[in-house]
Amino acid sequence: MATEAASIDIAPAPQPVKAVHPLASLQEDELRTITRLVKEHNPGQVCSFRRALLIEPPKAEVVPYLEAELEGRPRPRPPIRRGQALFYFEGRQEYMEAIVDITNGRMLGQRHLVGEHGPGSDEEMLKIGAAALASSLVKKEVERLQLPANCQVIAEPWPYGSDESDTPTRLSQVWFFLNYEHNKDHPSANFYGHPLDFSCVVDIATMSVTRIDRLPSNLGMSNTDPNARFVPNADSEYAPELQQNGLRRDLKPLHISQPQGVSFDVGADGETISWQKWRFRCCFDVREGMVLRNVTYDGRPVFYRMALSEMMVPYGDPREPLHRKSAFDLGECGAGQVANNLQLGCDCLGVIHYLDGLSVSPDGEPAIIPNAICIHEQDAGLGWKHTNIRTGRADVTRARELIFQLIVTVGNYEYALYWILDTAGTIHYEIRATGIMSVTPSAPGVDLSSLGYGTVVADGVFAPHHQHIFNLRIDPALDGYRSNAVVYDDTFAMPREPASNPHGVGFEVKTTQVDKEQAFDLDWTTNRVVKMINPNKVNKHSRKPIAYKVVAPPTQLGLFDPSSMHYKRGEFTDNHIHVTKYADDELWGSGEHMWQSRGGRGGCNAWANRGRQLEDDSVLWLTLGFTHATRAEDWPVMPCEVFRMHFKPVGFFEQNPALDVAPSTQNVNKSRLAFDGNGTQTQEAAVEPACCRPRL
Amino acid sequence: MATEAASIDIAPAPQPVKAVHPLASLQEDELRTITRLVKEHNPGQVCSFRRALLIEPPKAEVVPYLEAELEGRPRPRPPIRRGQALFYFEGRQEYMEAIVDITNGRMLGQRHLVGEHGPGSDEEMLKIGAAALASSLVKKEVERLQLPANCQVIAEPWPYGSDESDTPTRLSQVWFFLNYEHNKDHPSANFYGHPLDFSCVVDIATMSVTRIDRLPSNLGMSNTDPNARFVPNADSEYAPELQQNGLRRDLKPLHISQPQGVSFDVGADGETISWQKWRFRCCFDVREGMVLRNVTYDGRPVFYRMALSEMMVPYGDPREPLHRKSAFDLGECGAGQVANNLQLGCDCLGVIHYLDGLSVSPDGEPAIIPNAICIHEQDAGLGWKHTNIRTGRADVTRARELIFQLIVTVGNYEYALYWILDTAGTIHYEIRATGIMSVTPSAPGVDLSSLGYGTVVADGVFAPHHQHIFNLRIDPALDGYRSNAVVYDDTFAMPREPASNPHGVGFEVKTTQVDKEQAFDLDWTTNRVVKMINPNKVNKHSRKPIAYKVVAPPTQLGLFDPSSMHYKRGEFTDNHIHVTKYADDELWGSGEHMWQSRGGRGGCNAWANRGRQLEDDSVLWLTLGFTHATRAEDWPVMPCEVFRMHFKPVGFFEQNPALDVAPSTQNVNKSRLAFDGNGTQTQEAAVEPACCRPRL
Repeated sequence: MATEAASIDIAPAPQPVKAVHPLASLQEDELRTITRLVKEHNPGQVCSFRRALLIEPPKAEVVPYLEAELEGRPRPRPPIRRGQALFYFEGRQEYMEAIVDITNGRMLGQRHLVGEHGPGSDEEMLKIGAAALASSLVKKEVERLQLPANCQVIAEPWPYGSDESDTPTRLSQVWFFLNYEHNKDHPSANFYGHPLDFSCVVDIATMSVTRIDRLPSNLGMSNTDPNARFVPNADSEYAPELQQNGLRRDLKPLHISQPQGVSFDVGADGETISWQKWRFRCCFDVREGMVLRNVTYDGRPVFYRMALSEMMVPYGDPREPLHRKSAFDLGECGAGQVANNLQLGCDCLGVIHYLDGLSVSPDGEPAIIPNAICIHEQDAGLGWKHTNIRTGRADVTRARELIFQLIVTVGNYEYALYWILDTAGTIHYEIRATGIMSVTPSAPGVDLSSLGYGTVVADGVFAPHHQHIFNLRIDPALDGYRSNAVVYDDTFAMPREPASNPHGVGFEVKTTQVDKEQAFDLDWTTNRVVKMINPNKVNKHSRKPIAYKVVAPPTQLGLFDPSSMHYKRGEFTDNHIHVTKYADDELWGSGEHMWQSRGGRGGCNAWANRGRQLEDDSVLWLTLGFTHATRAEDWPVMPCEVFRMHFKPVGFFEQNPALDVAPSTQNVNKSRLAFDGNGTQTQEAAVEPACCRPRL
Repeated sequence: MATEAASIDIAPAPQPVKAVHPLASLQEDELRTITRLVKEHNPGQVCSFRRALLIEPPKAEVVPYLEAELEGRPRPRPPIRRGQALFYFEGRQEYMEAIVDITNGRMLGQRHLVGEHGPGSDEEMLKIGAAALASSLVKKEVERLQLPANCQVIAEPWPYGSDESDTPTRLSQVWFFLNYEHNKDHPSANFYGHPLDFSCVVDIATMSVTRIDRLPSNLGMSNTDPNARFVPNADSEYAPELQQNGLRRDLKPLHISQPQGVSFDVGADGETISWQKWRFRCCFDVREGMVLRNVTYDGRPVFYRMALSEMMVPYGDPREPLHRKSAFDLGECGAGQVANNLQLGCDCLGVIHYLDGLSVSPDGEPAIIPNAICIHEQDAGLGWKHTNIRTGRADVTRARELIFQLIVTVGNYEYALYWILDTAGTIHYEIRATGIMSVTPSAPGVDLSSLGYGTVVADGVFAPHHQHIFNLRIDPALDGYRSNAVVYDDTFAMPREPASNPHGVGFEVKTTQVDKEQAFDLDWTTNRVVKMINPNKVNKHSRKPIAYKVVAPPTQLGLFDPSSMHYKRGEFTDNHIHVTKYADDELWGSGEHMWQSRGGRGGCNAWANRGRQLEDDSVLWLTLGFTHATRAEDWPVMPCEVFRMHFKPVGFFEQNPALDVAPSTQNVNKSRLAFDGNGTQTQEAAVEPACCRPRL
């Protein structure tokens, strides 16, 4: 965060912003202070804001505050709150950063971020699309295609990505699709079902089309046929009104109710959540979507910060210009920036509380994203059970989860992101991938699936295989904010040996300390388990350090060549685990500015490869990949593909933390039998009062 | 199923049993026919029945029946129903098998299963325990320990397992625990919290104790101290009434209701289930718990048979006599045999339908297990969603699942087993492991966790690490019962090469045919995906065979030495995937008779290693392992550890099969806001009628 320009002192603002908790999300008045200071610092310029963000106070300043808070001691003065503005001067290429002291209303410095570019937004994408459609180059291509009468061409701008050619200006690559006349007025008409065979490149600062790229649609690597025409293909509609065979009518309503209200509380700050001994901040973040801060359980710190750090979506189609397709949806766009307004009863079922999100408008005003996060409880099935076969007595509890959901739309694609806490001390992170796959044209009658890097999913539509590679940054704080180490356990068969393992059945767990910054992979052959530990506190029974483990399967990593631009940009995509020394400004696995990034400016690899000694200040980065070989079943809209990973206590507690969950009883749960004794569906309460009666 | 004794013709029974569907579960009258025929065949003997089972009719005889059924043609005469009885003559060691023709009421043959032993039951285990406690050898050990006054010693019989020493008689190994005086009358007192330092071996036929084994409880490999006494330790109670700090009281009720009834139907046969285009039989099975038979979707066959085939639970503690601990819970015991009676509102939440289970009593009468399977629908969160950012219109559906739950108690441990079908054409199999870990004594003051193969989880209690290795047998029938093949797809980065992959970003899927019986592993480095295909039917868009894929992570396999008895018995535990040629009598991955089995009598390895050519008759066996390094948090009862695997369509459908699920709307879902405008919890309907309103 060093500033290039000298910092300029400005007199304190007449009314300093009111003190807020050091870990609170950016407040609306803070945002206004940031943009005001930037505007005042740049008289005569029109600032177009991309981001107005909180720079989290240095952890070293926050920890004494949190410790005092936890111990009930008088809290020290909260650290100064600083903000970052990322902006352009209207019509210019230079990407600008300003750092301000929000607390004291002072500009600390401003600089041109040389070689970097700002993130996109839906609003900008729509402008780029309009510019593309207005271009004579594009019109010429449209003319060549001899499209059906009265159809509507849709421009779909994407980040430009990167390849070996240098691209100093900020660019977008734009794909084209169409709606036929008969459904072009439908708000959910699926234009992606009709991909056109060209794209264009737009210089965003000037909003001008600089190049047309033809898209390959045949078995060859390129398509340069000057006379290629559009071949009409069938619609692929997902909207319910457009289903030619109607909708299924036999899925009966299912209602979730909580007649005594919900079990969670939300603090007056609007983001401190208390539920089942958990207490933490669920903060909206423009980039990361949701950030959990200062997660505590029964008054004990567990995690300082947990967030999705980046998501890379590289496509396996090597044909130009498709080779650049590789989205970094957090860095190029922002999971919070494109968060949906979630709707009661549509996106969320049951008894719901919503949190709004805060972004900035181009002119520097707060832009509220209503209902960006929905919070609700969910029954999670059997919690634990045991039946004593001697007495027939069964003890059974149910598991309950508290779910935080945020759904993002990134052009064609949707991700639903979830932080989930449960009644047994586990934190889960879940991702659901849905929406519409990114597709390109397929010439009729050609077996494009034979190429191996994609599937023809409908007439004229080729869906290239791609990867979704997620990276989570986990900053642990197990019973303290100053003692974070990482180890991993491998389980090995013991050698068959008369003295120690005479029957050849023994196996043992061996622990490896991660004492230096490094990257490594999971390994199913040794059941490798990565644990975050507090090396200074042991479980009284096991005599091992208290820990939380990562439960995630080993998944395929980035498939691009180490010499490729994808690899240089990715940073986190070639190992499952990176462990780095804590630094306040190392939050995102591929680095900070991702639009047309060219690598070499930080990220998991660079940081892990420093190999510095770790001294109770380890941060864990977890990479989970999903190689999506496209299916017909994912078209025209994809049923959610679900990934869930877990953070589970290992000796953090002295016994099962769900032991005090009350038994599951019919008296409380009010279930019903589906059918009466005659096999007829029953609407009345067919309540069976005897509960957990002996089996014997 | 060859019989050793010559078959003996018996005159047809006066009233042949009524014809039932070839795939129907064993009926009560059929069970009575089996045991009656066996009794008639053995006059003067007292038969003690272990099992009375249906032998599924040969697939070759069933398929024409199913095809006629599906196509609405007149059905051929159903195949003869045959039954198998497994039994002992009271007080004798010979394990007997009889095969009967149920349809015609004829004994087909009977033989002594030389070298095999019958499965256990809870009733037998309790008898063994009583015999052990009555033995003078055991009494002497108890005396040595100088136990606290008025405590109660509990005997916990287990299967004997196997090791290199030959054990021709049927044995049980018995562990001992105690309850202190103060809680010995509590029906859920956790005696496992007080393990004693010896075990005994019982000859089951004679119910006599043949040997005492001392248990190691120190750092050495054995414990022979003739004067070792019991060292009292603290209780580890799981029962709610015994929680010293009380129960949490802030988890509010959560109710699930279906005001218009459930969406599924149950046929008059009690086991044919119809739900959301799925139609199949959910059959109770004494051994496998639940078997799905003839699973069809929208009238198209998908699977002929799906079931858990075996579960092996080897322990990593190499010390004698613990080295033999390795449960085969299906073959030694039976998931159906020890199924819980599930209770409305306790084990199952919402609107529930129950299926009963059928077993046999020792005297040959039907033994009903009430409510063995619970069936209910569950909301599964976001189904699919897309927002068109140009129009602001969001289309969103929810996913629904139909769940079949069976919970088994195997002594100390519980497994909840689930078949789950969803609205997007996917079938899931879920296992939840809970209950109480098998533990052994730990001498006070000794760091037994340092041994590497277990964890001291409480004062005096050592929980050895162990594995749960599950094996599923999947017999596919994709659009037909006669064309089953298996392939696997690997995804490779393409070499960077100017002509085909100039930017080094391409990757491709390569398919390998499994043309011979074989075993192989999953591989995350290539994202290996195993698919069951119909080689004779292609998806019209992708031009690839229609398929269902297995979605399961690669997990650690058996950790025992290939020379060990565990290995010889396991059969399925050293590869993730086995593919074999279909055979009517190859249903269980470790073979049929598991009590004291010694290997070499069939199972996945043996069958896969035949290496025969496959001819559209492939069966897939999937192994999933969980290496459980024990945690304090798993004690005294273990929060459910959840494993879910999936079977997903790949080109089986021409598009997303959930496309016709009606949109998720507040009008149907009736959600509520948790708090009113003042932040007060609201009990009234705070319904927001506007649904899915535009985000822009």
